[in-house]
Amino acid sequence: MEQIRQFELSKEYLESLQLGIEEENIDFIRDSLDGVNVADIAAILDELSMQESIYVLRLLEKQLAADILIELDEDTAVKVLRELETSEVGSWIELMDSDDGADILSLFSEKEREDVIAEIQDRIKLEQILELLRYEEDTAGGIMAKEFIRANKNWNVIQTIAEIRRQAENVEKIYSIYVINNRQQLLGRVSLKKIILAGADTRIEDIYDEEVISVPVHMDQEEVAAIMRKYDLESVPVINAKNKLVGRITVDDILDVVQEEADEDIQAMTGVSADIEESDSVLTISKARLPWLLIGVLGGLMGAKIIGYFEVGLSKYLALASFIPLVAATGGNVGIQASSLIVQSLASKSAFDDTPMQRFFKGLFVAVLNGIVLGAFVFLVVVFVYGFEPIFGVTIGFALFCVVLLASFMGTVTPLVLNRFGINPAIASGPFITTTNDLLGLTVYFGIAMFLLKL
Amino acid sequence: MEQIRQFELSKEYLESLQLGIEEENIDFIRDSLDGVNVADIAAILDELSMQESIYVLRLLEKQLAADILIELDEDTAVKVLRELETSEVGSWIELMDSDDGADILSLFSEKEREDVIAEIQDRIKLEQILELLRYEEDTAGGIMAKEFIRANKNWNVIQTIAEIRRQAENVEKIYSIYVINNRQQLLGRVSLKKIILAGADTRIEDIYDEEVISVPVHMDQEEVAAIMRKYDLESVPVINAKNKLVGRITVDDILDVVQEEADEDIQAMTGVSADIEESDSVLTISKARLPWLLIGVLGGLMGAKIIGYFEVGLSKYLALASFIPLVAATGGNVGIQASSLIVQSLASKSAFDDTPMQRFFKGLFVAVLNGIVLGAFVFLVVVFVYGFEPIFGVTIGFALFCVVLLASFMGTVTPLVLNRFGINPAIASGPFITTTNDLLGLTVYFGIAMFLLKL
Repeated sequence: MEQIRQFELSKEYLESLQLGIEEENIDFIRDSLDGVNVADIAAILDELSMQESIYVLRLLEKQLAADILIELDEDTAVKVLRELETSEVGSWIELMDSDDGADILSLFSEKEREDVIAEIQDRIKLEQILELLRYEEDTAGGIMAKEFIRANKNWNVIQTIAEIRRQAENVEKIYSIYVINNRQQLLGRVSLKKIILAGADTRIEDIYDEEVISVPVHMDQEEVAAIMRKYDLESVPVINAKNKLVGRITVDDILDVVQEEADEDIQAMTGVSADIEESDSVLTISKARLPWLLIGVLGGLMGAKIIGYFEVGLSKYLALASFIPLVAATGGNVGIQASSLIVQSLASKSAFDDTPMQRFFKGLFVAVLNGIVLGAFVFLVVVFVYGFEPIFGVTIGFALFCVVLLASFMGTVTPLVLNRFGINPAIASGPFITTTNDLLGLTVYFGIAMFLLKL
Repeated sequence: MEQIRQFELSKEYLESLQLGIEEENIDFIRDSLDGVNVADIAAILDELSMQESIYVLRLLEKQLAADILIELDEDTAVKVLRELETSEVGSWIELMDSDDGADILSLFSEKEREDVIAEIQDRIKLEQILELLRYEEDTAGGIMAKEFIRANKNWNVIQTIAEIRRQAENVEKIYSIYVINNRQQLLGRVSLKKIILAGADTRIEDIYDEEVISVPVHMDQEEVAAIMRKYDLESVPVINAKNKLVGRITVDDILDVVQEEADEDIQAMTGVSADIEESDSVLTISKARLPWLLIGVLGGLMGAKIIGYFEVGLSKYLALASFIPLVAATGGNVGIQASSLIVQSLASKSAFDDTPMQRFFKGLFVAVLNGIVLGAFVFLVVVFVYGFEPIFGVTIGFALFCVVLLASFMGTVTPLVLNRFGINPAIASGPFITTTNDLLGLTVYFGIAMFLLKL
């Protein structure tokens, strides 16, 4: 019985490799990387220094090196690419799928890019890459590849298999074969399974499936992901305005899109300005966090000013200060809950969604309901447990009710407005909006208190 | 030229369908659903009443009805299933893939499940489903399907194609053919492309790829998703402890896993206790949100008590009250940022991760750095812009520094501890922890103020 080897990355392995590099023990390095998956080798290079990574890449077969380059962390890739000869990069790009080649090229500055492009000998590959570079990064065109198998509807199975054979080297994974007419327009799809099971002279026309879901080349990648997820697609053809087949997107790329979009939302919500990882340096992490923290601090300083205006009243009724955290925290929590529901529903929009008006009123009803429950609860505790006079209980309870309404309103409206202007609505659950809500909440709280307590 | 029809859901379409149902116009209903994708029909049924949905399902072909049932929203599915005859459900489940059948069965209560199982005639399918039901829902075993193509290494290509033909009806999508020995142990994989391109009497043994990545049946689904994403797999075989091939997981199921896990994290962070959607009723939304809001309110009420203890000092130095929001907000923001970084890195763990000790010190350094910047900034504003006396500026600045340290510590340690106990670490960025941080921060702030200002 043969054993399936699952490769385990370990620090010991990494250290032995680094020793091998230091000793320039070429055989040892090649041996220890032999049979290791490209994704694992890339993960190893991410941990090595830039010089070590380049040393290893140059020792490996060209195709392997190209595959590894694609899998590297963006930070590592940028560093490595800058040090390599443009001729090296060019020859590696020739060995990549067009979409990966375009991704690598887009890591260069405009000027360097020209130099690398000049080194790419394969004219067809180059044209494909240049076409892909023209599309926006976050659209179907930006993530599609030019490598896919197409069959003319007039072909038979034998001709189609010949085409698969011809393209076998270029197209790594075949899910569906796309069926086109003489004008390159998409007509449908036929699965590899059907090809295998059909007779040799069966015509494609007779076995292909007209029900094919395609996406237009300018569709946002998030929408593409939603469609692939909804319809359980393993790949989707991309068409231009004239219905011509221009590329295909595979589900492994979409898996990355879904993860990235989710990470982006969480980063927006937690107020981290750049795409940082735990392995980044202290200074990098600190710098990515400071801007949003400073916004929060500025908000807090403005809050101090606002409370300062009510100082005379506050001095007469000191207990008001005690309930500042209650008001601020509740406003923040309500705002985040309301906005996150809207953000979630914007991400999975459907034709049966509520209209903005319906959303507004629904949000209002939820807020009124929760506001009444929370306000009443706080009134009871303040008066009967903490023993304050009833008018003070009414003040705190009513202020809380108003803050819940206000925060809910802001939490509902802000993401809708941001979305309208093409800004990621998830930042509505982030520090900027939370800070704004805090300030509004404080003003409402003290305003109501001054009025009801006649201060 | 044929036109690719992209089905567009609309409210008008929905209304016309509802009218058709009311008039019991069977032909109209069948016509208007003809050629519509199952996922779209399911989305329509989600909008209909339970009675309308059942009426439509019973009009359709059995296989179509079974496919739609799988795609329904969980809420809709539960309602519909409860009203159907157990014999109907049983006959539909027979037409599903084993993993979908298991999912549908798991929506029933223990007792009802027995009744439905008794109605399933297909013994093989039933056995497969019962096996799947034994695995934990969130593991590889819980999401895998029993439908896949396997080939013995001693077979040739002709025999393998015969097996594909035999299984063609059961296995909808074929990505790879798994190669096994006589003891059903996984040896490797061979792609459909290779089968097509190989000669008819080529032995599988000679063309299969030994480098196959498999996952153990008890692996957590999040880990499976990470592996499939890392290695760009379209499907992954699942093996038991004896290396026997027991199932396969396809990437379309993993796409759902990635999205669900991301949604779960965001829900944990925003303190919504149940899986709610915007389309749910006001009461449902309100109920899902109230528990966490109440925790926040209870925290706020305890905060009021804490501030109450310092009332004497506060009355002597009223301006302390003004800076409560600053301290609370900064503590909250720092805590969320720190915890979200840890949560993110826990989700994509690698062998080269920092040790807990390294994490702790790195977090500490970032906190010290940010604390110094923020503390100094606040000191300058308080003294030179707001014109307070220097000792007060020092108090606010130093308190802020300490709160940043404390919140960062809590934000780093809490998710690590939660993770150790198998709890979703994302709740560390949620209301419960934020509330705790607020209370600790208030205590530190007033404690420092009382000491430095000698109150």
